[in-house]
Parts: sequence; structure tokens; C-alpha cells
Amino acid sequence: MIQRLAVVGVGLLGGSVAKAARAQGIVREVIGIGRDRARMQAALDDGGLDHATSDLAEGVRGADFIVLAAPVRAIEDLLERLWDAAPADAVVTDVGSSKTDIVRCAARLARRRPLAFVGSHPMAGSEKSGYAVARTDLFRGALVVVTPTEASDARAVKLVTAFWEHVGARVTTLDPEAHDASVAAISHLPHLVACALMDAVSREAPRALDLAARGFKDTTRIAAGDPQMWQEIFLANREPLTRAVGAFRRSLEELDRLVQNGDPAAVAAALARIKASREALA
Amino acid sequence: MIQRLAVVGVGLLGGSVAKAARAQGIVREVIGIGRDRARMQAALDDGGLDHATSDLAEGVRGADFIVLAAPVRAIEDLLERLWDAAPADAVVTDVGSSKTDIVRCAARLARRRPLAFVGSHPMAGSEKSGYAVARTDLFRGALVVVTPTEASDARAVKLVTAFWEHVGARVTTLDPEAHDASVAAISHLPHLVACALMDAVSREAPRALDLAARGFKDTTRIAAGDPQMWQEIFLANREPLTRAVGAFRRSLEELDRLVQNGDPAAVAAALARIKASREALA
Repeated sequence: MIQRLAVVGVGLLGGSVAKAARAQGIVREVIGIGRDRARMQAALDDGGLDHATSDLAEGVRGADFIVLAAPVRAIEDLLERLWDAAPADAVVTDVGSSKTDIVRCAARLARRRPLAFVGSHPMAGSEKSGYAVARTDLFRGALVVVTPTEASDARAVKLVTAFWEHVGARVTTLDPEAHDASVAAISHLPHLVACALMDAVSREAPRALDLAARGFKDTTRIAAGDPQMWQEIFLANREPLTRAVGAFRRSLEELDRLVQNGDPAAVAAALARIKASREALA
Repeated sequence: MIQRLAVVGVGLLGGSVAKAARAQGIVREVIGIGRDRARMQAALDDGGLDHATSDLAEGVRGADFIVLAAPVRAIEDLLERLWDAAPADAVVTDVGSSKTDIVRCAARLARRRPLAFVGSHPMAGSEKSGYAVARTDLFRGALVVVTPTEASDARAVKLVTAFWEHVGARVTTLDPEAHDASVAAISHLPHLVACALMDAVSREAPRALDLAARGFKDTTRIAAGDPQMWQEIFLANREPLTRAVGAFRRSLEELDRLVQNGDPAAVAAALARIKASREALA
């Protein structure tokens, strides 16, 4: 049971954290911290929040559980500002889509003042954003990666894991570097590839778009994602993403070379190997 | 009204041509030509075909409309074998996924003996194949590209267009080279890219697959397509596909470079441009 939950950033993820914790009855009081007055008012009006403030130090006062739900590139700055203001026994987590830099930042701050932090990445979301689309069931069935290190406070890991499980998520743990390499491969790379595909066809074969059917539209749908959000995600996970792009380019070049060589058996063998790996994914 | 429709290859596409023409009442008699006895029997049993034979010359005798519905790499060989056996007034089309080589082959044969041919590419299909999944409504609402050249017989273009429209398709015409460049961009390239993505992640970041959610699965689903069929499609359209891969690699390298440079405004601007082109697609 959380006595006072402080949510920093009341958008889709932060708003859903507040609503889901409330709906599950695992929190007595919810404080929202954000700058957008109208959004905060909506959350007060519908009961998602008990109190709202734009003052971080005021908002986290007395909180025993603090969730940083700001855009990924803002989280390190928030951590710095939060660190001295948070109660000594508070447990802090975040929802950033990459973890290495954030976890390192918290470890650096912890040398100055011990505070229980462990990173989280709820793999839930939507093409839409903002409190208006926040939902009590956003995390139901979603995967949340919790990223402890050897230095992590065991109580924090336990509480953060329990929190996500209570709002319906499946929790898995990975070290921050393994997490970042994984999301680069299965989320950020496919997004960059969809963008490159849309870009290449619209620039170099625009007439082909007249023939675009469901397949092409499905493949490129994510290329219409929010540019600001994806710029932040890409840059926050730049090095793992660059390595994933390198691996992808090697596979693409190999397939391209096989097609250019024109050996039917070699092309079919490569495609059969890839089919088997896709089918193993289920 | 077609008196005798001969369908060469009674799988998903050929079977659907037979069934749809029958259902629309635009054909008096349907002859199926194929090598698979069991499949042909199924089509005779359910009334899709009136007669079935494995002998091409026998099958096209007396036919006024002939549809070659074999795998794309087999169509040129079939054209050669069919050309002298077809009645002088027959109209011939095919359903191959690339058109330049097939149309050139027909033009070469026409110098020996005039015969009315025009290429078609019905952009309809399924991950499944075979007569068992053939449907009367496969072409309903589908786009069919008809690919006449300056040398094409006007009556053939008119009849082939009318045929596809009668079975419910929207027909557009493109010259064979423009068609091949277009399908390379919006169909074959996305397929190759999905294969490379699946390949890269399964080879170089297999643990990441544990985190794969709906997005990654949707993006890579087509990588489980039939290896033999896609090998044929890729190799039949090798040059346009190679050019499309080149355009894609340039776009990917540009995005990769922007991410590596780390300028937020430049990355956001590129993503905004791509978002706009995706939204223009609807």
C-alpha cells in the first residue's frame, strides 16, 4: 500500500499510472506534478489526482513512491532536481524508453545522497499522447522491464516490481545495457526502418504510392509517429540504435547481394532460414 | 461473354479467376490446365472447372480467353509453349508479379505469329496458396494493373480490362517498366526489408526477441512468407528491386547519420517530413 504517490508528468503514461494505481486501490493519495494547468485540472476533475502542483519539491514532499513519467530526455534533469527534495525513504522509478544513462545518473547522485531508485520501462503506449488518452488498464498485459543493477536497493526493486504487477503488467528484469540493446533491436530499429522506407519511396518512386495497398500502409504506419517524441527516443538510445542499424544493414546487404547474384537456391535458403526464425517467434 | 476460358495453373489466383468468372456469369465453359491431379479434381468436384487436363495444347484448344496463372518465373516458358497452340483469335493474359520480361517475351513471340497478349498483375493474394483458398471474391476491390505497350492489340486491352472489372477489380494501366519499378518499391522492397529486420535481430540480438511485442511482430510477419514464391518474385524483378534497395539504403544511411550527429532539431525535421509524406498517403 502506497501512502502518497507522486507522478511527475501527467500525460499518457503518468496519467495511466495515477489512474491504474487508484483503480487497484493500492494508493491512498496521488499528487501530480506538471506544468500544463489545463491537463492537471482535467486530472483533478476526473479524480485521477488528489492534488496538482507545478513545483517539484512541493509535489514530492511526503511521497513514499515517486514515478518520473516525463519524456525520456527530460528524466536525467528531473532526477537531479528531485534527488535532494525527495523523502529519505521514498522509492523512485521512471518510465523512460532507454535506461543506461538514467540509471548511471541516479547512481552518480546516490553517491551524494542515498535514495532508492530503480529504472522501469513500461512497454505500453499508443500513437496518441496526453492525459486525455490515459487509461486505468494501459498496463494490463503489458510488459514492463525493470532494470536493477548490483547497486540497486533490494526493497526498491521489490516495491517497483510489485507496483507494476498490481496494475496488471508482466515484469521482467534486465540490466540497463541489455535493455537498451534489446529495445534498440525490436522497437527503435523497426521504427527507423519504417521511416527510411516511407522516405525512400516518397522521394524516389512517388508514383509507386498510387499502387500502395494494405501491406505497405501497415509497414509504414509507425512512420507517422510524433517527430519530437521519436527524436528524443532515438537520441536517448543513440549508441545501441546505431549498432542495431549496423546489424540490419549487414543483413540487408547480404540479401541484396544474394538477389543480385541470382542463384535461386541461395535466395530460397536464406528466406527459409528467416521464415524459421520468424515462426519461432510465434 | 467468354465462350471458353482456359486457366493455366489452378492455385489461389487461377482458381479464383475460374470461380469469379463463373460466379459473375461471364463465361460459358472453364478449362483448367495443371499438373496436380488432386487439386484439379477438387476444382472439378466443386464446379470451379468443367474440364481439367495436364496437356497445355489440349487445354487451350478452342479457348477465346486464356489466363496464365503459374508462378512468375514459369510464365515465359508457358508463353513459348502456348503461343503456337492457342487459337488465332484468342486473347491471352497472365497474373505475374513483374511484367517487363514477360511482355518482352510475348512481343518476341508475336513477331513469329500474331497473337493478342496483354500482361496483368492482380494485386490480390494471401499468405496461403493453393486451390483450397481460391475464392469467388478474391478480386473484389483489389487493384489490377494491366500493362499494355504501343504494340498491344487494342481489343485485347479492352477485353482484359473488362474481364478484371467484371470480377470486381479496379483496373489501372501502366507500362511494364513503370509497373515493375512501382511494385519493387511498394511490395518487394518492404518484403526484403522485413526479412532483413527479422534476420538481423534473430542473429545479432536474439535475446531481444523476448521483448518483441505487437509492433515488431506485425512488421516482420511477412518474413514468414513462402521462401520459394518470394525467391521467384525477387529474382523475376531483380533489377528494379536492386534499384529500390539502393534508394532505401540512401534514406536509411541519411537517418542513421542524423542520429549519430545527435542534433535534435535535424532529426525532428527529418521525422516531420517523413510523417507528412506518410499522412499524405492516407
